[in-house]
Amino acid sequence: MASTPVSLLLLFITTVLLPSSSSSPTSQPSDVFPSNKPPRFLGKHSHPIKPNHQQYRYETLFFSQPLDHFSFLDLPRFRQRYLINTEHWVGPSRSGPIFLYCGNEGDIEWFAVNTGFVWDIAPRFGAMILFPEHRYYGESMPFGSREEAYRNATTLSYLTAEQALADFALLITDLKKNLSAEGCPVVLFGGSYGGMLAAWMRLKYPHIAVGALASSAPILQFEDIVPPETFYNIVSDSFKRESSSCFDTIKNSWSALTSEGHKDDGLLQLSKTFRLCRKLKSVQALADWLDSAYSYLAMVNYPYPSNFLMPLPGYPIKELCRKIDGSPDGSSILERIFNGVSVYYNYTGEVDCFQLDDDPHGMDGWNWQACTEMVMPMSSDRNTSMFPAYDWDYSAFREGCRMDFQVTPRPRWITTEFGGHDIGHVLKLFGSNIIFSNGLLDPWSGGGVLKNISETIIALVTEEGAHHIDLRSSTTEDPDWLVEQRATEIRVIQGWLDEFHKKVKATFSI
Amino acid sequence: MASTPVSLLLLFITTVLLPSSSSSPTSQPSDVFPSNKPPRFLGKHSHPIKPNHQQYRYETLFFSQPLDHFSFLDLPRFRQRYLINTEHWVGPSRSGPIFLYCGNEGDIEWFAVNTGFVWDIAPRFGAMILFPEHRYYGESMPFGSREEAYRNATTLSYLTAEQALADFALLITDLKKNLSAEGCPVVLFGGSYGGMLAAWMRLKYPHIAVGALASSAPILQFEDIVPPETFYNIVSDSFKRESSSCFDTIKNSWSALTSEGHKDDGLLQLSKTFRLCRKLKSVQALADWLDSAYSYLAMVNYPYPSNFLMPLPGYPIKELCRKIDGSPDGSSILERIFNGVSVYYNYTGEVDCFQLDDDPHGMDGWNWQACTEMVMPMSSDRNTSMFPAYDWDYSAFREGCRMDFQVTPRPRWITTEFGGHDIGHVLKLFGSNIIFSNGLLDPWSGGGVLKNISETIIALVTEEGAHHIDLRSSTTEDPDWLVEQRATEIRVIQGWLDEFHKKVKATFSI
Repeated sequence: MASTPVSLLLLFITTVLLPSSSSSPTSQPSDVFPSNKPPRFLGKHSHPIKPNHQQYRYETLFFSQPLDHFSFLDLPRFRQRYLINTEHWVGPSRSGPIFLYCGNEGDIEWFAVNTGFVWDIAPRFGAMILFPEHRYYGESMPFGSREEAYRNATTLSYLTAEQALADFALLITDLKKNLSAEGCPVVLFGGSYGGMLAAWMRLKYPHIAVGALASSAPILQFEDIVPPETFYNIVSDSFKRESSSCFDTIKNSWSALTSEGHKDDGLLQLSKTFRLCRKLKSVQALADWLDSAYSYLAMVNYPYPSNFLMPLPGYPIKELCRKIDGSPDGSSILERIFNGVSVYYNYTGEVDCFQLDDDPHGMDGWNWQACTEMVMPMSSDRNTSMFPAYDWDYSAFREGCRMDFQVTPRPRWITTEFGGHDIGHVLKLFGSNIIFSNGLLDPWSGGGVLKNISETIIALVTEEGAHHIDLRSSTTEDPDWLVEQRATEIRVIQGWLDEFHKKVKATFSI
Repeated sequence: MASTPVSLLLLFITTVLLPSSSSSPTSQPSDVFPSNKPPRFLGKHSHPIKPNHQQYRYETLFFSQPLDHFSFLDLPRFRQRYLINTEHWVGPSRSGPIFLYCGNEGDIEWFAVNTGFVWDIAPRFGAMILFPEHRYYGESMPFGSREEAYRNATTLSYLTAEQALADFALLITDLKKNLSAEGCPVVLFGGSYGGMLAAWMRLKYPHIAVGALASSAPILQFEDIVPPETFYNIVSDSFKRESSSCFDTIKNSWSALTSEGHKDDGLLQLSKTFRLCRKLKSVQALADWLDSAYSYLAMVNYPYPSNFLMPLPGYPIKELCRKIDGSPDGSSILERIFNGVSVYYNYTGEVDCFQLDDDPHGMDGWNWQACTEMVMPMSSDRNTSMFPAYDWDYSAFREGCRMDFQVTPRPRWITTEFGGHDIGHVLKLFGSNIIFSNGLLDPWSGGGVLKNISETIIALVTEEGAHHIDLRSSTTEDPDWLVEQRATEIRVIQGWLDEFHKKVKATFSI
């Protein structure tokens, strides 16, 4: 079988990392090619791993949504898919809570089966479980089909976070009314971009949800709030921590790659070294493929075997570095790299040849979102990062978006609409009931909220955690800190619900 | 000169009040005509009274806004007008505050000169004053002109409260950046619909403003939050309080009007009795004209002479009732009514004949807003209201909106987007720094927040206050309660600013 890079997470990699000559990237100026490409997301809109339906039971329903909540244009409605499970729900008479996962950039079934925490804890809360899908993903396509929805900038123009939040608001309000469940508190969950949505939804729609668990939500990864080097520094640190020689090999591999690629039969040679199914078209494509592997590995560097993005062993970075460092004496730097990334792309050993994602300009939903609202500046520091040096270049990014989507980004819109600057000041005496959970191994943690803001807007930070590991189903291999983290989350959520019921019981009314 | 009903305020009157026969409305079923008309706003988009520019000095500037903040359609931008005064501003170095009035449904210059409170207090705070205009009003017209902006439902479709709030957010963010004033706190002000915008803006954009004074903001006048009879009951009570015979005369006048109008030369006779410039086309038009007078008088029942909607004496309802009750013996009921409403329409005595607003289906901005988002159910109780009995009929309302604007209202959208139900519960532990001020004489107070919600979301209620009287300039005739109310508001605003500066000084950061 041939592997494809399967992934979906809010990953946003600058494709313009590769130095253009063979000298060491650390001594290079930020000379990169091509310079007009936008950072891109390597996600696919659907995930090839079939969800295990036996594990989680749900009904699949559809809700008719306005395409535009914020204008009164006469536009066609679309069907939003949502998954629902009521088997543990204690119902309106006992104000049974509703657990709503804020669907993010992908097929909602895939998020549902990878968010075991919600399923695990619903019974003890007597909670309904809801997984609404994000518009323009999975089966929730405006204009009747994915092809139509992704046709051009006009049809895509309603793919925004604000519209998605309003979708959730409308759906849950309608559903509660139909079930006479207006008195039932809603608790929000979300991971990654879904975590951003959960946090923002609690802030913007406090009348709809009593609290939000926002896991690995990089709501500060915008504009100048955190340094743009943050993401790649954290990725790099994860490798350095395992092995400084592994870090060095990777750091030096980029110039080896460029140098090899510039030879007469370089691309063919590289295709062989990396066992590609088809001849490589550019060194950049291979560099992107490697970049993805390292970045995703840092995100899913879980302490036990997992199958979230790819089938992987526990501590997969340790494993990768073992392969790089332990390659036979005399192995070239690129052979070592190949052995290493095979841990990510071919852990099961079933892949005969590798298929690169050769459509980096595809109209994938997250690429659109990144080119409109979700502009997250990314740099690679020439000293601390193992990736080629790169300074964030907004102009080049903007031009790439214009070329790919005929759209101009609004790089300051997210912080205008949702805030982010001085979040500690702003939310110290405003808002309540949000958990920001982050694992420091996760490169997205650098854009997360890592300190308590108030008594009720809190940060749960774990040293050893990776990308929203707390939202995964509990396993017998869970380390103590993870068991503890989830117990804290359950306690806090219970506190929100207790507070809600206390307020409802009190006769206070306005 | 001929008078026209000049008005602008969030007034939203059911035009379907008049009984169709001459029997007493109290004994009548809710038989009204025509039944398919929507409630309408009697506002004009501009105010004929020229603002007194000498009193308040400001620069008039324009800011380029996206027409749609929530999609990425490639649409023409528009120029938003804003008034700015910096003469008292102590500037960025001393974190001088910015007082931003949330422009509502009319020409911003008119709001600026009628919001003296902001001008009065700016010097003591060292504050900048900003009056941005609401899109689609005054000179802030999309598509280049009022005619184009109001052409049809498509061009009007971006006239929504959410877009207006985003306009304010973008404008202030950009302005602060240009002035290096990012560290300067913004305080929001607003009256009536502008007060709703101020409160919603504080709730939705806490990162942009530290607090809001929302005066006479009926944010609960939606769906089923308050009884639909509330508005007309308060209007009626204001008349009954002055004189029960005045109340009775008005209550009985509707059937007299209908009965007269049904006579052969009835419309001509009515035109004479009410000194109309042109022959009356329908009894309904005259009924609407009277309804407006009573409702507006209840709103501006200020204790001193004023010239907000019309030139009026102090306590104008008392004056109107004096005219009705004191009409010469033998005066008919309609002659009494005419004498009474002349207080509203002709207090200066300069009007020779009256011009009714004969374009109730005009494309005025508030009519559009009322037919889309701002659906405020209104009934008239057969016992407690002096207006003809009317039960809110959403279907008829919707059909009227479809006919007038080819648009279908979203009657539950405002509460979904901004909340309102159980506001006491929801905001008890969420949000901060909002003053809801209401005067109980104001018919809109019934849809306002009249109880403290938390320590920092507070209600200031005055028994004798009318529609956002606290936002008017102080005068030597101000009663003690008004002087006190404004002093409280100043103290609370000072508290927000002190808190802001304290937080900034603290080294807390996230």
